[in-house]
Amino acid sequence: MNGKEKGSSVKTVPVKVGPWTIGGEKFTIIAGPCSIESYEHFLETAQAVKQRGAAMLRGGLFKLRTHPDSFQGLEAEGLDLAKRVLQEVQLPFFSEVTDPRQIGDLMDVVDVFQVGSRNMYNYSLLKELGQVSKPVLLKRSFSGTIKEWLLAAEYIAKAGNSQIILCERGIRTFETATRNTFDINAIAFIKQNSPFPILADPSHGTGKRSLVTPVALAATAAGADGLLLEVHPQPDQALSDGYQTLNFDEFENLVEKTKKLLPLLGRQLQEPL
Amino acid sequence: MNGKEKGSSVKTVPVKVGPWTIGGEKFTIIAGPCSIESYEHFLETAQAVKQRGAAMLRGGLFKLRTHPDSFQGLEAEGLDLAKRVLQEVQLPFFSEVTDPRQIGDLMDVVDVFQVGSRNMYNYSLLKELGQVSKPVLLKRSFSGTIKEWLLAAEYIAKAGNSQIILCERGIRTFETATRNTFDINAIAFIKQNSPFPILADPSHGTGKRSLVTPVALAATAAGADGLLLEVHPQPDQALSDGYQTLNFDEFENLVEKTKKLLPLLGRQLQEPL
Amino acid sequence: MNGKEKGSSVKTVPVKVGPWTIGGEKFTIIAGPCSIESYEHFLETAQAVKQRGAAMLRGGLFKLRTHPDSFQGLEAEGLDLAKRVLQEVQLPFFSEVTDPRQIGDLMDVVDVFQVGSRNMYNYSLLKELGQVSKPVLLKRSFSGTIKEWLLAAEYIAKAGNSQIILCERGIRTFETATRNTFDINAIAFIKQNSPFPILADPSHGTGKRSLVTPVALAATAAGADGLLLEVHPQPDQALSDGYQTLNFDEFENLVEKTKKLLPLLGRQLQEPL
Amino acid sequence: MNGKEKGSSVKTVPVKVGPWTIGGEKFTIIAGPCSIESYEHFLETAQAVKQRGAAMLRGGLFKLRTHPDSFQGLEAEGLDLAKRVLQEVQLPFFSEVTDPRQIGDLMDVVDVFQVGSRNMYNYSLLKELGQVSKPVLLKRSFSGTIKEWLLAAEYIAKAGNSQIILCERGIRTFETATRNTFDINAIAFIKQNSPFPILADPSHGTGKRSLVTPVALAATAAGADGLLLEVHPQPDQALSDGYQTLNFDEFENLVEKTKKLLPLLGRQLQEPL
Repeated sequence: MNGKEKGSSVKTVPVKVGPWTIGGEKFTIIAGPCSIESYEHFLETAQAVKQRGAAMLRGGLFKLRTHPDSFQGLEAEGLDLAKRVLQEVQLPFFSEVTDPRQIGDLMDVVDVFQVGSRNMYNYSLLKELGQVSKPVLLKRSFSGTIKEWLLAAEYIAKAGNSQIILCERGIRTFETATRNTFDINAIAFIKQNSPFPILADPSHGTGKRSLVTPVALAATAAGADGLLLEVHPQPDQALSDGYQTLNFDEFENLVEKTKKLLPLLGRQLQEPL
Repeated sequence: MNGKEKGSSVKTVPVKVGPWTIGGEKFTIIAGPCSIESYEHFLETAQAVKQRGAAMLRGGLFKLRTHPDSFQGLEAEGLDLAKRVLQEVQLPFFSEVTDPRQIGDLMDVVDVFQVGSRNMYNYSLLKELGQVSKPVLLKRSFSGTIKEWLLAAEYIAKAGNSQIILCERGIRTFETATRNTFDINAIAFIKQNSPFPILADPSHGTGKRSLVTPVALAATAAGADGLLLEVHPQPDQALSDGYQTLNFDEFENLVEKTKKLLPLLGRQLQEPL
Repeated sequence: MNGKEKGSSVKTVPVKVGPWTIGGEKFTIIAGPCSIESYEHFLETAQAVKQRGAAMLRGGLFKLRTHPDSFQGLEAEGLDLAKRVLQEVQLPFFSEVTDPRQIGDLMDVVDVFQVGSRNMYNYSLLKELGQVSKPVLLKRSFSGTIKEWLLAAEYIAKAGNSQIILCERGIRTFETATRNTFDINAIAFIKQNSPFPILADPSHGTGKRSLVTPVALAATAAGADGLLLEVHPQPDQALSDGYQTLNFDEFENLVEKTKKLLPLLGRQLQEPL
Repeated sequence: MNGKEKGSSVKTVPVKVGPWTIGGEKFTIIAGPCSIESYEHFLETAQAVKQRGAAMLRGGLFKLRTHPDSFQGLEAEGLDLAKRVLQEVQLPFFSEVTDPRQIGDLMDVVDVFQVGSRNMYNYSLLKELGQVSKPVLLKRSFSGTIKEWLLAAEYIAKAGNSQIILCERGIRTFETATRNTFDINAIAFIKQNSPFPILADPSHGTGKRSLVTPVALAATAAGADGLLLEVHPQPDQALSDGYQTLNFDEFENLVEKTKKLLPLLGRQLQEPL
């Protein structure tokens, strides 16, 4: 019961991240704040999600925001602070790179370079990430076809780096009741047609806190290899994306449900320790 | 683990169909051919899906096809044949009504009037169905917002019939790798915001046989109250929609997986007997 | 300068409407209220648009409204009133048919049966209109591809009526600054690939009064055979669609601009008499 | 007859480009190849379009291509060659910048930095262009709302550069008969609501050579301040985008039609000399 039909011919090739792999038998939960806001904030969140079952951390330093007056992340100033938290918490770390010139600085801090939805077509950035020695999480553009997404992955692979993890995060449609339309078909399609592991980001995929858990479970049932989740001690006070961010209790509840679902799919949760 | 977050305030009101209900604790699988092709074909399919766990039957008599030269269904000539199969198989029957003038004839045969995606905005038809004494399955238009869908339901309800069952069947987006984009968010949203039971149609929602099972499981995990599935003895020879239709083995496999998933969600399969 | 490139192989076949034709050298402006509200209202509007250059009238009797509590048109009660106005004003009349059972009544009043955007896929209705002896204006579904639109026209033609006029009225996209996205490409595409005349409806195509005139001129420059426009004595008090409806002065201004543009395109305005 | 309704309150602020301005009374045609292929190719094209009425040149050096194996432009190697052609032809030059690190090199060659559709959300690049002393042509993302587009412009303006020219080039919709859907509403909306001049790119906006001329005329009638056009000596042999590229005769024909239309709109063509 792994979400695959007979006849699917492509086997997922796991990608090594820190001490573990993504895309194998284990299912990976990556959690953390949308933006890292301060040392204390990131430490508290990181410890809380680790304690509740996240095997890896996420946290934005360089943010792409639609409005120029919105909080743009701590940027380079946040690098040290993130490093200190990571030494404390000891979990692999995902963070977004928005400009090729950040790669050097981030190299030191991240375990996985995250390419955000707005940069899936930034081939200049992708080519450069093809030359780094760490995995790349390639989010789907909210307007990208599956074909374009896989071609974007090829930009990275052709430049020399085949440690690629895909992430579905919802597409732009005519529907306005939700921020994006999470493309559940894409999860199943990628599992059957691409060797790259695929994560689900139901936070962006729905844009509504109350929908994150059911859609996370749906993506898991459809065969996703893990979840990328926004979690914050007090979502309503988050500097970005609070409306789609889980608090610690909601996150714990989601992890518990996922844990029960995984054995049915022949998988287990990757525990943080 | 029922796909609902704390705070969701709307409780589903089950709808009675034949001896059972849709939208309660039991999960309902409705299966059958896209189009009824002959007495033998419908009987074989009906018996096969009943034997494998479908509690209700579907089968198109009046079809809306994009191309005027495509098979348009057996139309009125199929009514008797359908009646004979139903007497044999004894399961509740869903069939599509495409014109208000068919209501009289269909009244005799169907347990649930199905309104297809192309007719969600056919308010003239909806108003008339508001006056019948049987439930209505209201499919979402492939271009309808959730808000418009619920307003379409209101057309039926205001005309006097509140036995309404919704069905998500995918929306039209820019993606072309799949026929439609199944809106998994909509399943979760409807569960939290509407009293009407909601089914998932992963056959149309994906348009690809290999994706039907993972997306069916996803929809179930997200909280759907049942599945509407296209099944055919030999999908490749179906007169319509064969590329998205399961054969008997694939259907059996899907039912087995669903059965295992349901207890985790606090539900059980509605058995056909 | 008729908006066609060398190599376009399909010539428009004009359709006769009342004493004139649509799709020939003359350019036709069809104007009137979204909904007919009363005898006085329709008479005033009809006289005003005739005086300012409309060669034909439009006015809704049977309306399809998203919300069941919205004004649904005068329906059958408006038929007589419309007939009286038409006797007075003596212009060809377009009105929407939303149910096959209205055809008999409308036959007496309309010169052209209008199929609204929500009914482009209502093949049951289209087949019936294939048997009437009057032209059909087939609006594009807001979610219909050009290919589906032409196949819908084929439903009418195959049933025996080839007096078909197409009308582009905007499609549903992710953009929310305007109600719909007027598909200007479709105007040019239809002129090059279909024999049916094509009108532009910039009222629905933009959903914003201030955009109606520039988009009307654009459609004319792209090769449209005429315009379908919503006009009302006091748009802000219209019972439907006021926000996209022109008042008499705005309409006059638009006609004047169109008149100047037409000779450049090798055409002239069809004068009302 | 300038495509504006009474009540539009925002006046376009012209942007100086070389010896002329864009967005004033004069209408500007910018033409050239999608990609610069060689010295001879660019020279021939530049001379041809200048002779036929283009006041400015376009030509890609750094290309963003969906497929990693497609021609990516001459890149840095083309800079000298472009400079030599420009010395010969003496027209202002637009070329795309795809990475902030190209700005220094391009500064020497271009008169206007072009930001392509895929980079409208590349705020890192936009902020940097906010610090240059030359105008920026900001193409709309094929999935960007008008609101997001204006906010992207604000990123440039807030960083210090308000010499911004917008360019509509079609959006991604469900329609597949054309490559994109040219958003004619956006032309009219921008004229009424933004101070930035707006160009139309009907080459990308339609993706079909035969539709370029009618849509160009439409955009002009709707109020666009100029056209950005792909022209090639032999479109069928172009290294990129040949199917939407005009040959010299087609270009000449389009210029002639535009010239006749402009006086009606109270404008004149900006002549190249």
